[in-house]
Amino acid sequence: MEFDLIERIRGCCGSKRADVALGIGDDAAVLDVPAGRQLVACTDTLVAGVHFPEATAPGDIGWKSLAVNLSDLAAMGAEPAWALLALTLPSPDTHFVEGFAGGFAELARGHAVALVGGDTTQGPLSVTVTALGWVPTGSALTRGGAHPGDAVYVTGTLGDAAGALQLLRDRERVPQALLARLQRPRPRIAEGIALRGLASACIDVSDGLLADLRHVCATSGIAAELDSGSLPISSALAATFGAETCRELALSGGDDYELCITIPPAREAELLGAFARTRGEATRIGSIVAGSGVRVLDARGDDVTPMRAGWEHFSA
Amino acid sequence: MEFDLIERIRGCCGSKRADVALGIGDDAAVLDVPAGRQLVACTDTLVAGVHFPEATAPGDIGWKSLAVNLSDLAAMGAEPAWALLALTLPSPDTHFVEGFAGGFAELARGHAVALVGGDTTQGPLSVTVTALGWVPTGSALTRGGAHPGDAVYVTGTLGDAAGALQLLRDRERVPQALLARLQRPRPRIAEGIALRGLASACIDVSDGLLADLRHVCATSGIAAELDSGSLPISSALAATFGAETCRELALSGGDDYELCITIPPAREAELLGAFARTRGEATRIGSIVAGSGVRVLDARGDDVTPMRAGWEHFSA
Repeated sequence: MEFDLIERIRGCCGSKRADVALGIGDDAAVLDVPAGRQLVACTDTLVAGVHFPEATAPGDIGWKSLAVNLSDLAAMGAEPAWALLALTLPSPDTHFVEGFAGGFAELARGHAVALVGGDTTQGPLSVTVTALGWVPTGSALTRGGAHPGDAVYVTGTLGDAAGALQLLRDRERVPQALLARLQRPRPRIAEGIALRGLASACIDVSDGLLADLRHVCATSGIAAELDSGSLPISSALAATFGAETCRELALSGGDDYELCITIPPAREAELLGAFARTRGEATRIGSIVAGSGVRVLDARGDDVTPMRAGWEHFSA
Repeated sequence: MEFDLIERIRGCCGSKRADVALGIGDDAAVLDVPAGRQLVACTDTLVAGVHFPEATAPGDIGWKSLAVNLSDLAAMGAEPAWALLALTLPSPDTHFVEGFAGGFAELARGHAVALVGGDTTQGPLSVTVTALGWVPTGSALTRGGAHPGDAVYVTGTLGDAAGALQLLRDRERVPQALLARLQRPRPRIAEGIALRGLASACIDVSDGLLADLRHVCATSGIAAELDSGSLPISSALAATFGAETCRELALSGGDDYELCITIPPAREAELLGAFARTRGEATRIGSIVAGSGVRVLDARGDDVTPMRAGWEHFSA
């Protein structure tokens, strides 16, 4: 009998949705996209030893493989609906699969995401998830709309996941608040939806604030100036590292999965009001100016931009 | 500077489509599904050394990674539209990427498929493609509609790809006609679309005819009886292997990517007419009966079902 991992995962994974006409178990899924909506689609791979330490708990891998994709949907202002899962495993390891499915399902349920298809293959451990969702037609947030004079905001706090990873690599004790940010990142779905019609540009912070904001600058054809003193640092990070390291982690550390937003100044009050309703937090960290690239300025206006921009694996 | 493989692939890959509101280059793609259509979605992974020999030409890997997914869409009667590509490579190998992209693009262009997103990561070679397409609402072909009395048909010829793989493994000369079936399978898109409203059930033959037809039997709650003498064998296969080996390859060899169809007898003339218009071929190979499982009968009515059902890696 075939060891059907996807069937096993189906048993515990994801939500049931009326818009799934045909889910797992045929050659493909058949799905109903509501009228007046555009489909939003993304795919991201996590490779063992590259995107997560080999020793990561299966449930955390499951959670994170979906989270990084939902974060991309959040950055578009999209509401997630469905996911497809391609899981490559060295062997048909039931313990791994059940742990993985548990973590995946926990996040999927929290956002009413249905697992509608997938593939399991034998090979070195890696996970590719495709997430599908939608936006009202014409309302997707993009990287391309920032203008000089816009404010730059970021949700939540920065650097926590990178701080946790650094402590893990140094074999030091990792505060739980930091570890949770690395292992169970929370995609900013509600915040992304609240930003529709408000943000002029949006991106999720996955490779590091500087690296990701540079994408916004390049696509929008503008520059950004950040105030190094305004970067949102968690109390857990500040209690663990010195101020300079916190700043570096916040600027260049990856895996934050916060949203970085630009917004016309006239809309800032609406932004803060919308976030108050979604219980989200956002901090103003700088401004959009003419030019190109991202500069970080200290309180005296001196350029303190780090040389290292972000996480430098070769992945796109 | 980041070695942006997906950007490089974008340059040569796939078609431009008016229904791609936002393609590669943002956090996710934004896509317009036409009114009156259901989205059809599938994902499949190819792992080096498992799904293709390590020495396979990059262009063939690119072609096949898309082909296996388009074949799943074909089995649903879907028209393909978009694809997302997750490519994991041991190193940023420009030669590989350009070859891969060339093969992927060649097939994508042939079916007007636009590459709308992706991810490139560093790790052991594997490729996961997600294919998206659509059917008129309510017209998807499934595995679940076969009834006793239905005829069983299969498109094209069976066993060619498995024959080529066997010769490669035995380090023997491989006739070009067989090698092409292994390296550049042609998804039966036009045939799948022609089958809408005609076939009672449909599946693509990826794991082997017996294994795949068993899925139809299990989902539909019926059995199938195949006539071993009616299996469509190509002249290239017949010229290379003995009759008994041809039969085994046709029944149990994988990677055919033909469609196996069930159809009420009253609709058979329409099927053949529709296939004549799409220049497709289909061969009647058996019948649906009450019961469960698949039996293969010879001309005397003796049961000659092979013990080995299909390709037995652990993948679903």
